[in-house]
Amino acid sequence: MKNRTIIFEKRPVGKPTNEVFKFVEETVPQPENGEVLLKTVYVSVDPYLRGRMNNSKSYVDPFNLNEPITSGIVAEVIESKNSQFAKGDVVAGMLGWSEYQVSDGAGLYKVNSNVTPLSVYQGILGMPGLTAYLGFTEIRQPKAGETLVVSGAAGAVGLLVGQIGKLLGCHVVGIAGSDEKVELLKSEFGFDEAINYKTTKRMNKSIAEVCPNGVDIYFDNVGGEISDGVIMNINKFARIIICGAISLYNETRIPMGPRLQGSLLVNSALMKGFIVNDYSAQFPKTIVQLTKWFLEGKLKNKETVVEGFENIPNAFIGLFEGSNIGKMMVKI
Amino acid sequence: MKNRTIIFEKRPVGKPTNEVFKFVEETVPQPENGEVLLKTVYVSVDPYLRGRMNNSKSYVDPFNLNEPITSGIVAEVIESKNSQFAKGDVVAGMLGWSEYQVSDGAGLYKVNSNVTPLSVYQGILGMPGLTAYLGFTEIRQPKAGETLVVSGAAGAVGLLVGQIGKLLGCHVVGIAGSDEKVELLKSEFGFDEAINYKTTKRMNKSIAEVCPNGVDIYFDNVGGEISDGVIMNINKFARIIICGAISLYNETRIPMGPRLQGSLLVNSALMKGFIVNDYSAQFPKTIVQLTKWFLEGKLKNKETVVEGFENIPNAFIGLFEGSNIGKMMVKI
Repeated sequence: MKNRTIIFEKRPVGKPTNEVFKFVEETVPQPENGEVLLKTVYVSVDPYLRGRMNNSKSYVDPFNLNEPITSGIVAEVIESKNSQFAKGDVVAGMLGWSEYQVSDGAGLYKVNSNVTPLSVYQGILGMPGLTAYLGFTEIRQPKAGETLVVSGAAGAVGLLVGQIGKLLGCHVVGIAGSDEKVELLKSEFGFDEAINYKTTKRMNKSIAEVCPNGVDIYFDNVGGEISDGVIMNINKFARIIICGAISLYNETRIPMGPRLQGSLLVNSALMKGFIVNDYSAQFPKTIVQLTKWFLEGKLKNKETVVEGFENIPNAFIGLFEGSNIGKMMVKI
Repeated sequence: MKNRTIIFEKRPVGKPTNEVFKFVEETVPQPENGEVLLKTVYVSVDPYLRGRMNNSKSYVDPFNLNEPITSGIVAEVIESKNSQFAKGDVVAGMLGWSEYQVSDGAGLYKVNSNVTPLSVYQGILGMPGLTAYLGFTEIRQPKAGETLVVSGAAGAVGLLVGQIGKLLGCHVVGIAGSDEKVELLKSEFGFDEAINYKTTKRMNKSIAEVCPNGVDIYFDNVGGEISDGVIMNINKFARIIICGAISLYNETRIPMGPRLQGSLLVNSALMKGFIVNDYSAQFPKTIVQLTKWFLEGKLKNKETVVEGFENIPNAFIGLFEGSNIGKMMVKI
């Protein structure tokens, strides 16, 4: 039986292209004692993977050339020589971009396959859900009535942050990259206001219009000029969380912008980088809360599912073109 | 008896000049019931006053044109019609730039005139001391062994932050603007290392050399390119406090620089604006601690005292030329 794997062939400069990836075909590996054989079901593609393609220090190690790319994967156990897993179990974890692979089980966890669709473990009940909940609630301490602005609002994390903001009583404003996304944020996901940054001439002014009481919390997934406009509207004691900076990931020079120290100073404002893995001790109780909200219908799942192993690279590249709404993943 | 007052005549554009100020001469006012007549002893000149000269929203209201400029002042009560103050009391508070003035006592507090010199109430036991202690210890949670970098290190606040850092067991690096200041930081104030930013070609590299374990805490009084170089060396979980941005106060355009979001993100780092008045509830216990350290000789006082009421404007302008070491003030 043939098994395809995607190898990291070439470090990208600027926006990634198909040259970054190389498909190889081998036979399906056989599990040894203590191992399981996994069949990949869903592959997550995430903006942060772009950072791992650079050969530079960051919060996760860079990918090694000539090795499989890894990301969050949901897989089915199709053969087990490990007593902790049985054939038919569904597991999630950081795994390689292969149709089949063996694992000793380290870092894998069994998911409840009664909670469906299984893709939810890539979204609300996976890394994006943990990021949205912990980044927003633990760090920003939102209070009812405060104004929350979310950039990348139609992305996997942004869509959840906005919904959680509404559950906690905030005035929620989303920023996204198309009229379709803007409409969806308001009609389906309860955002009070949404802005299409591609058709907005002055973000500063647009934010002021939809945030009449200023901005108390800014959950930033994008960085760059969008953020400049938001930060010009912050209130005293504003909290800015830097969760991502997708607008900057493909930059080949150090990006320049207005210095923010003055705004932070006069507003006693806080800006903090957020990496979800720093909060792993809180994952279990957070998953309980997110599962509850999901099963009660309070958090809506939204995903863009691309079909077919061969389309993983294009799904990843599409992240930087804004081609997803909600969590982007590939179904194998 | 004649009484001189300095009026805010003209809003500066860029670096302030003598045109900003106008001296007027009137007779000494007479206190009414409930008032005291004060004779000014020390006038504090501070970089933050530059912000109040702009007609823009900030953490303190802008100065009104044609009114006396105000700042922290130590004064002697020379006549009292207020039962809370007696002739001979020494008081401190926000007062006008006049040789004599009346006050109803609101916002004034009596200082212990046995703790000398009285100028210490403009420094260690005044706003700079509160700023240094609360900004550094309450917000940054320093741990022994961590590396602290202080910019504006030979200024009123910086000099105290560095000394408190040493008391708490940090590796302390100061950045200042002359070889004389650098030498003084190391020889008199216990800084482990100090850098003259005016003769340093690449701040990034210089910081790396004197901070072999990276930067855990950056107490920033200056902003601008100096900060860019420091921030390139921050560690995971670094804390950056924005206490001032003297390098930017005279800018007439929005200053540009490298975007910091990426560095904050990959390091899970925090950056926060700090305004001492937000922490006024903690002033009394902080003054107790600072007085103890001062009387024990653990915190050394350092000041640049200019003599003469007529020299207040030049003392203020001199702040932006780095002409002070420690607290800059004018003795009347």
